Amino acid sequence: MKAERRSFLKKVGVGAAALTAGLASKAVPAFAKKTIRWKMVTTWPPHFPVLGEGADLFAKWVDEMSGGRLKITVYGGGELVPPLGVFDAVSQGTVQMGHGAAYYWAGKSPATQFFAAVPFGFNAQSMNAWILNGGGMKLWEEVYAPFNVKPFLAGNTGVQMGGWFNKEIKSINDIKGLKMRIPGLGGKVIAKAGGNAVLVAGGEIYTNLDRGVIDATEWVGPYHDLKMGFYKAAKYYYYPGWHEPGTALEAIVNKKAWESLPKDLQAIVDAAAYKSNMWMISEFESKNNAALVELIEKHHVKLRQFPESVLKSLKKLSKEVLDDLAAKDPMSKKVYEHFKKFQKNIYAWNKLTEEQYQKFKYL
Amino acid sequence: MKAERRSFLKKVGVGAAALTAGLASKAVPAFAKKTIRWKMVTTWPPHFPVLGEGADLFAKWVDEMSGGRLKITVYGGGELVPPLGVFDAVSQGTVQMGHGAAYYWAGKSPATQFFAAVPFGFNAQSMNAWILNGGGMKLWEEVYAPFNVKPFLAGNTGVQMGGWFNKEIKSINDIKGLKMRIPGLGGKVIAKAGGNAVLVAGGEIYTNLDRGVIDATEWVGPYHDLKMGFYKAAKYYYYPGWHEPGTALEAIVNKKAWESLPKDLQAIVDAAAYKSNMWMISEFESKNNAALVELIEKHHVKLRQFPESVLKSLKKLSKEVLDDLAAKDPMSKKVYEHFKKFQKNIYAWNKLTEEQYQKFKYL
Repeated sequence: MKAERRSFLKKVGVGAAALTAGLASKAVPAFAKKTIRWKMVTTWPPHFPVLGEGADLFAKWVDEMSGGRLKITVYGGGELVPPLGVFDAVSQGTVQMGHGAAYYWAGKSPATQFFAAVPFGFNAQSMNAWILNGGGMKLWEEVYAPFNVKPFLAGNTGVQMGGWFNKEIKSINDIKGLKMRIPGLGGKVIAKAGGNAVLVAGGEIYTNLDRGVIDATEWVGPYHDLKMGFYKAAKYYYYPGWHEPGTALEAIVNKKAWESLPKDLQAIVDAAAYKSNMWMISEFESKNNAALVELIEKHHVKLRQFPESVLKSLKKLSKEVLDDLAAKDPMSKKVYEHFKKFQKNIYAWNKLTEEQYQKFKYL
Repeated sequence: MKAERRSFLKKVGVGAAALTAGLASKAVPAFAKKTIRWKMVTTWPPHFPVLGEGADLFAKWVDEMSGGRLKITVYGGGELVPPLGVFDAVSQGTVQMGHGAAYYWAGKSPATQFFAAVPFGFNAQSMNAWILNGGGMKLWEEVYAPFNVKPFLAGNTGVQMGGWFNKEIKSINDIKGLKMRIPGLGGKVIAKAGGNAVLVAGGEIYTNLDRGVIDATEWVGPYHDLKMGFYKAAKYYYYPGWHEPGTALEAIVNKKAWESLPKDLQAIVDAAAYKSNMWMISEFESKNNAALVELIEKHHVKLRQFPESVLKSLKKLSKEVLDDLAAKDPMSKKVYEHFKKFQKNIYAWNKLTEEQYQKFKYL
């Protein structure tokens, strides 16, 4: 099936090239064009809703903007390299580009995690402000530079859900012994609470949950979770997603490949990342509620809110996890200090604005 | 001074063209290039912080992405046409592009206002979701189509502040007789509350406030308001900005000019709007708090929160204003129904997510 798909992609690629060449002919004579071909490997199953679609659209937009001069073929996780081999492949120049989330590369450098999701950290709007206009991007580039990788902010999930559980969580003690699929810093927090945090690739979560290999899993939000079918394997659906309040997705480019691009194509790749970022959060936000209603009304999922005492404990443990991380890794310390300073400012501002907005909805 | 600036712009324009031609030469031979020159008129003073800067950056990004094939010269309000003449100039094809906010064109079609700001309406994230992925753009295009204008979402201010007042607002009765600079639907709400809503262009607000021609004004938020110097003319600074919880800025393009662009340049203009949108909200969000601190600590501004009773009254009046609008104008009714449906869904979703996020900051 994978081979079939690749052959399909190849055909589509040729068709699209011919079409685009025709469309762009008004601006640039065909003889003047030189087509650059890139491969983008992703951490998502092929054409995975929103996340994989975002990667596909990224390639489509670059193709359109460049008048077919930069053609990016997108590969699902496992098609060319394993999902968690994306960073290495881009770093080594096996491929020119990747699409995923920075916390998958914590093994390379723990500081990467700040650029995906921090428990009780930033929501999408604050994450964007921090990375794009608040100085975060400079640090992210510094973290990736030793690997010859250049990062771009290319998506956001928004505030996620807390996850799927096969039993109710009434106190922090209910986390003890719980085997939960939860990656990154959130996983470290669950471990500190006495749980057993495991990392399972997206495609295998459902089976693990269904067979009782794991007791719980977090994923994204209703639109995505509905498609994953988790409601068939666990009945309690918790909010809020304290561990991922605004998870950023990334596009990453090999340094040499980046430097070999003419300036106009560099600018096009950069803008495609911005568009991708905006498209993804807007897609999630506009579709989540209908999926939530379907989960509750059609599939009889039991919606539950984490008790405040549980969130309080998790927040305390999150701070310990972050302090531990900063104590052990100088780069993480540098990023964390910057993050905290920005957080203090944006929280003070949001107190007068976004927080009020969430309240005046109910007046 | 305006003439001087134009001559300066002209020089910069030529310099940038030469530079870009050099940079892009790697991709497209210079002889193959055809330069398209567009004019963009804006509703902002030249190079106005964030809003005007956003328009300048839009042109810069299009120039970079197109390798100099599409050059947009940006004009501040009044340089080529008056600030509030932007829509007409684009509609008539006097210029190819404009940059402003849709509520300025309420006189053309009252439904335009939904695409800028609705009192107690959407914040930036929901506005983006509604317009870009929730069906709003199709309606916006429909509203602008009779004028041969194509809209793009090109910025957002985030939740604004409530404005500057020379007396405290303790009850809804304090609005009676108040002469306030407040445009759009917010102005209609103030009028319904017994106030006197006036429209004053950005460059004249300070003088009017200082001379007592108006008693109050709203503008944007601390970063912008600090630069406007309002703290010298009014001492009470109110939050939240109930009237503009996430004001969208627009880029508008004349239909013929749009259709004359090759597909690749169309895609570039579209992506520049997305980038602009993300850049602007991130710029405001990352700079507002420092400016607020400066206003309070250095300029001794008195920060005040609107009492809940005032917000409740304003919300009730806002609903009346919107219902009146829908009753009088079929297109407004159509947009309002769509808006309300989306609002119901996104509020339900935000209840579990963004609202929780704003709370767990304080755990």
